[in-house]
Amino acid sequence: MTEPADATPGGVYSSKGKAYTRDTRYLTTRIMRSVAPGEDAVLVEPGRFRLIAARACPWANRAIIDRRLLGLEDALSIGFPGPTHDADSWTFDLDPGGVDPVLGIHKLKDAYLRRDPDYPRGITVPAIVDTTTGAVVTNDFAQITLDMSTQWVEYHRPGAPDLYPLAQREEMDQVMRYIYTEINNGVYRAGFAGTQEAYNAAYDRLFTALDWAEERLSGRRFLMGGAITEADVRLFTTLVRFDAVYHGHFKTNRTKLTEMPALWAYARDLFQTPGFGDTVDFEQIKQHYYIVHRDLNPLQIVPQGPDLSGWLSEHGRDALGGAPFGAGTPPEPVRPEERAPHSILTC
Amino acid sequence: MTEPADATPGGVYSSKGKAYTRDTRYLTTRIMRSVAPGEDAVLVEPGRFRLIAARACPWANRAIIDRRLLGLEDALSIGFPGPTHDADSWTFDLDPGGVDPVLGIHKLKDAYLRRDPDYPRGITVPAIVDTTTGAVVTNDFAQITLDMSTQWVEYHRPGAPDLYPLAQREEMDQVMRYIYTEINNGVYRAGFAGTQEAYNAAYDRLFTALDWAEERLSGRRFLMGGAITEADVRLFTTLVRFDAVYHGHFKTNRTKLTEMPALWAYARDLFQTPGFGDTVDFEQIKQHYYIVHRDLNPLQIVPQGPDLSGWLSEHGRDALGGAPFGAGTPPEPVRPEERAPHSILTC
Repeated sequence: MTEPADATPGGVYSSKGKAYTRDTRYLTTRIMRSVAPGEDAVLVEPGRFRLIAARACPWANRAIIDRRLLGLEDALSIGFPGPTHDADSWTFDLDPGGVDPVLGIHKLKDAYLRRDPDYPRGITVPAIVDTTTGAVVTNDFAQITLDMSTQWVEYHRPGAPDLYPLAQREEMDQVMRYIYTEINNGVYRAGFAGTQEAYNAAYDRLFTALDWAEERLSGRRFLMGGAITEADVRLFTTLVRFDAVYHGHFKTNRTKLTEMPALWAYARDLFQTPGFGDTVDFEQIKQHYYIVHRDLNPLQIVPQGPDLSGWLSEHGRDALGGAPFGAGTPPEPVRPEERAPHSILTC
Repeated sequence: MTEPADATPGGVYSSKGKAYTRDTRYLTTRIMRSVAPGEDAVLVEPGRFRLIAARACPWANRAIIDRRLLGLEDALSIGFPGPTHDADSWTFDLDPGGVDPVLGIHKLKDAYLRRDPDYPRGITVPAIVDTTTGAVVTNDFAQITLDMSTQWVEYHRPGAPDLYPLAQREEMDQVMRYIYTEINNGVYRAGFAGTQEAYNAAYDRLFTALDWAEERLSGRRFLMGGAITEADVRLFTTLVRFDAVYHGHFKTNRTKLTEMPALWAYARDLFQTPGFGDTVDFEQIKQHYYIVHRDLNPLQIVPQGPDLSGWLSEHGRDALGGAPFGAGTPPEPVRPEERAPHSILTC
């Protein structure tokens, strides 16, 4: 994600004089284990679909994490667009020849146009492409990860965690809704605010929500209790970008993540859990925001900071009990061909 | 200061594709207790000169602090330009009618043009204006504060500290030179860098110097020992702006000041010493940088953060011994008409 519909001629993400509103219209075809007549869905099929997910993007990072946690590497292949792009959006500039080796295209836009030659909205990640047609099936980021948990069950690895437990869904849906509107999208509302008033209101909303999360996580190891869930994946992808990008670039600077004790320890706990930190590429994250948002950072200088060594420090969250994978097990190490190029983890 | 020579049409402080170099040519007429024939200097005279010093500007902040510490309020009057300005530079927009009550001008530029109708360089603060002619005498910021210490001695308050002790000048001059090139100007070198390479080099130089200062201040209370000197004044004015502005706006973000333990405690020690923190206006500081540097921050949004409450917390530096004013005494409280409008000190 991160590409608004009106991005021509590129580099403009804020609207001077206006508050920021995310365009939330997506391609909503689902990939499901069974499809009812008339339903806008296709059947799950291992090897047929390809997840396109830029490591830089927090919405795509969710899908990269879930695919790792659930062990879907063999069932659902993955392509990684590079961190920077022009108004035509994400490209495969990191791949040999600048071409995705499976889809054979330079730009993700091509797969959107295969779906709809007049596709009018943002060319966003994550997107899932049908490799038999080359067309985008869905870019509905919230549904994509939930469907990985609930529709691709047959292809989960042994020991995969239950990231969307039935018994907790009602509360989880509320928690995730709040995290989305107030935190995941809240940082963008502050960063793309086109007026001081809109920024001020966004800042207050964001830190109200972070204070809520700090409080909630002071007494429990993960958002829903002793084991990780989809809610943690969603909070993590914003927290891991907080000091590296949002604090400075989006001016969400009341405090750094490192100054919110429970959240900082929680974020490190997740970072050090297989499937989370090993998907993170801080260099790509910084390059994306600081280079692509030319309206916020015209000189496109990418900061050298912050010092990242703290991410590997002891978090002490074990004292709260629980086990990240519940009755399950951690995923295997990242496959060599899928390693984050600038990972700060050495394993 | 902070206004480069080529600031037309305003808002442009960096040079895309180029490193940043400060224009260090100033009006260097001195104000002295005795003047040798042929020397470019005028005699000290109480009530004749007016210091023009924007609270926002670190170079001007030095002079505001020294005037307080030395008790020169009656001898040298002061005018405070507001924090923001266009290409014509500092104005008296905070004063009734937008006019300096003594000089009777709207813009500091007028006093520069009175000195030289073709004045070709930046309209900077601090500047000292001769009220009998309305012309700027000097804007040589480094000399201005040293001359307050050494030339205005007759008008110092009882108990004024010796900010430039003879016995320490040789080492002090080296320390102050290093602090100027590496830290005071170092943050600007990073912030106004027009290439990634220039920024990277500036960032490395700056944090090398801050690590040096952290080390030096771990074992001694102030830079030159147990009492404050001009060297501390000069380091303080950069440190006090570090988290509020430089960390985000200038991308000097390896660590916040609050993450450098000795420097942070040292900065709080000074902040809580009469004459330092009571000159600081964080709101004006943030408004200046974020609104004036349109090339770095086109939307001119001013961040709400950081949380400033830590500035008033205990610093524990007394354990290192020493006494800020040596054998002298602290200055009286700030005069009501000279209070920083948004001071976070309640006294």
